[in-house]
Amino acid sequence: MSAPHRFFVDDGAVTRERAWLRGDQAKQIALVLRLAAGDEVVLVSAGDEITVRLDAVGRGLVEGAVVARRAAATEPAVALTLALPLLRGDRSEEVVEAVTQLGVSRIVPLVSQRSVVRELSDAKRERWQRIAREAAETARRGRVPHVAEAVGWPRLFDALEPPIVIAWEGERERPLASALAPSLRSLSLVIGPEGGLTEEEIASARQRGARVVTLGPRNLRSETAAVAAVAQAFVLVGSD
Amino acid sequence: MSAPHRFFVDDGAVTRERAWLRGDQAKQIALVLRLAAGDEVVLVSAGDEITVRLDAVGRGLVEGAVVARRAAATEPAVALTLALPLLRGDRSEEVVEAVTQLGVSRIVPLVSQRSVVRELSDAKRERWQRIAREAAETARRGRVPHVAEAVGWPRLFDALEPPIVIAWEGERERPLASALAPSLRSLSLVIGPEGGLTEEEIASARQRGARVVTLGPRNLRSETAAVAAVAQAFVLVGSD
Repeated sequence: MSAPHRFFVDDGAVTRERAWLRGDQAKQIALVLRLAAGDEVVLVSAGDEITVRLDAVGRGLVEGAVVARRAAATEPAVALTLALPLLRGDRSEEVVEAVTQLGVSRIVPLVSQRSVVRELSDAKRERWQRIAREAAETARRGRVPHVAEAVGWPRLFDALEPPIVIAWEGERERPLASALAPSLRSLSLVIGPEGGLTEEEIASARQRGARVVTLGPRNLRSETAAVAAVAQAFVLVGSD
Repeated sequence: MSAPHRFFVDDGAVTRERAWLRGDQAKQIALVLRLAAGDEVVLVSAGDEITVRLDAVGRGLVEGAVVARRAAATEPAVALTLALPLLRGDRSEEVVEAVTQLGVSRIVPLVSQRSVVRELSDAKRERWQRIAREAAETARRGRVPHVAEAVGWPRLFDALEPPIVIAWEGERERPLASALAPSLRSLSLVIGPEGGLTEEEIASARQRGARVVTLGPRNLRSETAAVAAVAQAFVLVGSD
């Protein structure tokens, strides 16, 4: 017997006692999964997993009764925001997928001085958000990370929760571990674009209180740096 | 002024005093970089960086004198072998690129019970090796990781240095950190294929002394698991 199917839903789709699924989700339940009254599904909303026993299944509307609600056991203790440069091709999208599986809470697309790609269209941002949603489903997470609007360097620091940690190839000594206390509740990681961050950007970031670290002596591509830094941060903070 | 160009070379290309470059490397020096007698290049061989002052530059042969030799500062203290399943599409190749940048010493392509892709042709293995070489150049490493022949599950354990650590989604408790001592000199990480490793495979691995760990409660795709496990292992072992 396989586990009940999970669906991410908006707050409005479920109350304390009842749940309603429409559109593609109703169609999937009725026509693809072919569930019927009496079957159970799990709705995931804002960090909770809500077990629902279906009592009416139609291709336009599926309804059911809430039989259990619990916090999803798969969300990390630390809320990690990743500031991710717009990279060429679909490399940023691969990072969105990987870091969503790893557990980030928020992704802030970043345009910096040496960024080659300088604009994230609405359609592209929606695509990133859709990739994040699908990756959160695959990972069986309790939340979908939010993909923010793209920001430039000065405004970035208004958008990030402290501590803010920047991985920079110009820093040779200070490792990621030295910038992270165990049991942090929030954390922001910033990765530079293909051409790197400039001295000026680093200086202004330091003035805003950012901590600048090295990910080690080997030169990493931006996308490898992003995935590695997120993976290492979760371990260093001691967050599941 | 930019740093001298680096070239990975075979042992035979350099003695204590002299160095010779041929083929594509000679062509690149003569025709693309347009270096001349008196210019310097860095040759990288078996973990050493060898500075060579050129004294004859031709498109078929470039010669020079060794002026300095030092151990590359970019190699990690731990020799990490990654057993990587053959994944669909070019996903394995993206992992080869990322984990080479991160610092692995050896990649062992793995075919297990539920592997969908079950064969690595010679051409494909050469392609993985070429990707590893290019990634090692980008990362400014002192060695190119060796891409081994593909192996099946029973033979895998003859090919790996202990300790052998397997990331398995069926393990819920034991984290990666618990299986790694700081200052290890060698380590092997095993990642399962898309469909996961079977109970039988895990049981036989335990009999061979492997340690089975979880990478956390979120369900990771194989390629994300591979990159994350390598990144986390380097931090947990305390290796640069």
